[in-house]
Amino acid sequence: MVKINNNYLKLQGSYLFSTIGKKVNAFIVENPDKKVIRLGIGDVTRPLTPTITKALHDAVDEMGKAETFRGYAPDLGYDFLRKAIADNDYKLRGCDIQADEIFVSDGAKCDSGNIQEIFAQDNRIAVCDPVYPVYVDSNIMAGRGGTYSEKTEGFTDIIYMPCLSENDFAPQIPEEVPDIIYLCFPNNPTGAVIGKDELQKWVDYANEKGSVIIYDAAYEAYIRTEGVPHSIYECKGAKTCAIELHSFSKNAGFTGVRLGYTVVPKELKRDGVSLHSLWARRHSTKYNGAPYIVQRAGEAVYSQEGKKEIAGLVDYYMRNAEYILNGLRGAGYTVSGGVDAPYIWLKTPKGMTSWEFFDHLLNTANVVGTPGSGFGPHGEGYFRLTAFGSYENTVEAVDRIKVV
Amino acid sequence: MVKINNNYLKLQGSYLFSTIGKKVNAFIVENPDKKVIRLGIGDVTRPLTPTITKALHDAVDEMGKAETFRGYAPDLGYDFLRKAIADNDYKLRGCDIQADEIFVSDGAKCDSGNIQEIFAQDNRIAVCDPVYPVYVDSNIMAGRGGTYSEKTEGFTDIIYMPCLSENDFAPQIPEEVPDIIYLCFPNNPTGAVIGKDELQKWVDYANEKGSVIIYDAAYEAYIRTEGVPHSIYECKGAKTCAIELHSFSKNAGFTGVRLGYTVVPKELKRDGVSLHSLWARRHSTKYNGAPYIVQRAGEAVYSQEGKKEIAGLVDYYMRNAEYILNGLRGAGYTVSGGVDAPYIWLKTPKGMTSWEFFDHLLNTANVVGTPGSGFGPHGEGYFRLTAFGSYENTVEAVDRIKVV
Repeated sequence: MVKINNNYLKLQGSYLFSTIGKKVNAFIVENPDKKVIRLGIGDVTRPLTPTITKALHDAVDEMGKAETFRGYAPDLGYDFLRKAIADNDYKLRGCDIQADEIFVSDGAKCDSGNIQEIFAQDNRIAVCDPVYPVYVDSNIMAGRGGTYSEKTEGFTDIIYMPCLSENDFAPQIPEEVPDIIYLCFPNNPTGAVIGKDELQKWVDYANEKGSVIIYDAAYEAYIRTEGVPHSIYECKGAKTCAIELHSFSKNAGFTGVRLGYTVVPKELKRDGVSLHSLWARRHSTKYNGAPYIVQRAGEAVYSQEGKKEIAGLVDYYMRNAEYILNGLRGAGYTVSGGVDAPYIWLKTPKGMTSWEFFDHLLNTANVVGTPGSGFGPHGEGYFRLTAFGSYENTVEAVDRIKVV
Repeated sequence: MVKINNNYLKLQGSYLFSTIGKKVNAFIVENPDKKVIRLGIGDVTRPLTPTITKALHDAVDEMGKAETFRGYAPDLGYDFLRKAIADNDYKLRGCDIQADEIFVSDGAKCDSGNIQEIFAQDNRIAVCDPVYPVYVDSNIMAGRGGTYSEKTEGFTDIIYMPCLSENDFAPQIPEEVPDIIYLCFPNNPTGAVIGKDELQKWVDYANEKGSVIIYDAAYEAYIRTEGVPHSIYECKGAKTCAIELHSFSKNAGFTGVRLGYTVVPKELKRDGVSLHSLWARRHSTKYNGAPYIVQRAGEAVYSQEGKKEIAGLVDYYMRNAEYILNGLRGAGYTVSGGVDAPYIWLKTPKGMTSWEFFDHLLNTANVVGTPGSGFGPHGEGYFRLTAFGSYENTVEAVDRIKVV
């Protein structure tokens, strides 16, 4: 008799955004006349830019002709894209990352869920709290969670690093030494960033303890403040302790196009084994490359025109962030994030729980946000709004929230 | 100190097709004047058909306009595609599979590697021998392999079901009861098929023992013989014991486009838990949907024009298969497969090992095939050729092989 993976049964509730989707759909069915504005899930709304769509069209044409048709992509990504990434995202910033240290994939969500596979089951992981749910859930599914505690609203084997207003939503090095440390800056969900010196402390700590940092840089394009690192490899010694995840979803609007990459430096070894070779093996065995046409679109992101257009997208969303920040602050809300990140993190008013505020906002303002408690126990009492809506919808949503 | 997943170190050599790629590249560097013909990896060579490229272009245009832009796809696939699959691949064949039992993904390789995750670590798996390497490797990486034995050239905890000419390359039910049984028909690598009665025996056995069959139907479009099942759900009771994997790579030429799907019937439960819900949870946590444009291309495969074009592609490759079969048989080779499958399985001549024949063919005929031993110990002494080349190259390759 086959036995199922019981670790799945330890997961609490369904995946956060599936739950929100169901709640919103139910509301719409009951209130067909209401215009619901979604500032919940971090999904972009601007169309792909002209340079990107041209690259896609050209690549489709190539695929339609025998002479230029392409079958299986190289497992780890086409050289043209890996080189463009290394040159633009790293060398231009003074980071010594080579093209063959870059693994192209169909998105940072997949990579952030799969990366834990190359590590043994009995590692202790540490996460920020609140946190992007995939880091925790993928580890629970792999048996690294221990058991769920009603009391702490967390898992016994996971080290939670509270990120609260008291510490500017930056995690502190925990008492217990973690083996794997998940960090994400600009942060999802809080929108917080940390400076280079602060990040350097984590790198030094990981190198000292032999830990590995999984650094999620999905939102780096939103950084505007001087001195905030765009990559962990700006820190000294990061190549011997850090893996970095990147997404094209939020800078280039690829949430529905699917492209991302992960950097595993060749110098990164543990137990004498190269993590680069382990991840390469995972990729070549369980993955089959991102679509050729999508990789060409990724390449176009780094063209001169592409870069300009992408900067325009980021500016568009950051205008939204500013409107939300100023609007809610003016209305008396306590808000943070939204300066170097497309997320605004607000304290729920009148002592409401996160889900109470979710229902309140949906019912009174017909605005969808994300309950902070969905990101972890220390997200309780907070709420996330995203800047990824259209400007018109964002203005309307904020104006509605102000008066409820 | 972080600990790596030591199971990865048990894998023998690198992924088969990576090894072949490296060998061929080395040959080309040393022999730049030689025209190498590749009939090794099962990669298609015909361009995408007009209906497919039109669907891709149209979808790209939609993504370039704000009104029609699409962000994150539904985790499990767009309804338009899931419905087209259910209608065409199942209902038209009399199989009662619903759209919401279909999980759209970026390919059958990924799904076949990931599906084992929803099962506990201490299940015994059974595979055909020879076999598509991903089934075995993904289970070794998850710790289900036991240790590698030099003597048997296999893993101690895996049940191998020899597929030899004596049994028409069909596996026999093993003595030891497996928990998870991987079957693939039309078979990769042998090109063998089994009839519906034979498949029904496996379904009855799995239902009796509580085992689960992972049925890989990636090559079903190549079936020409009446009575050979296209889907395991043509068998009675399969919905309570079988998961089916499908690819768009081989019928529609999507190896570089990336699209596949997996069927997990809602009736399929073990330990009282729905495997459908477990796979849904895996998808929503660690995957983010196939690209919208690619899903529209998948939909086009099922249009009237699309179906005609796809049939043309399959005919094209099957003409190659026929040429290889007849040519090699005429030259005195012992060959099988190639009738309901795009793979030709040949016995190496003069007692050569599979890799000796690989080198021999590469050096003398400059033709690349796949050594049978790369698919498992009982593949030793065999060799796989694919029908996925161009007709001209296929003819030239066969004519070259005939005279060496």
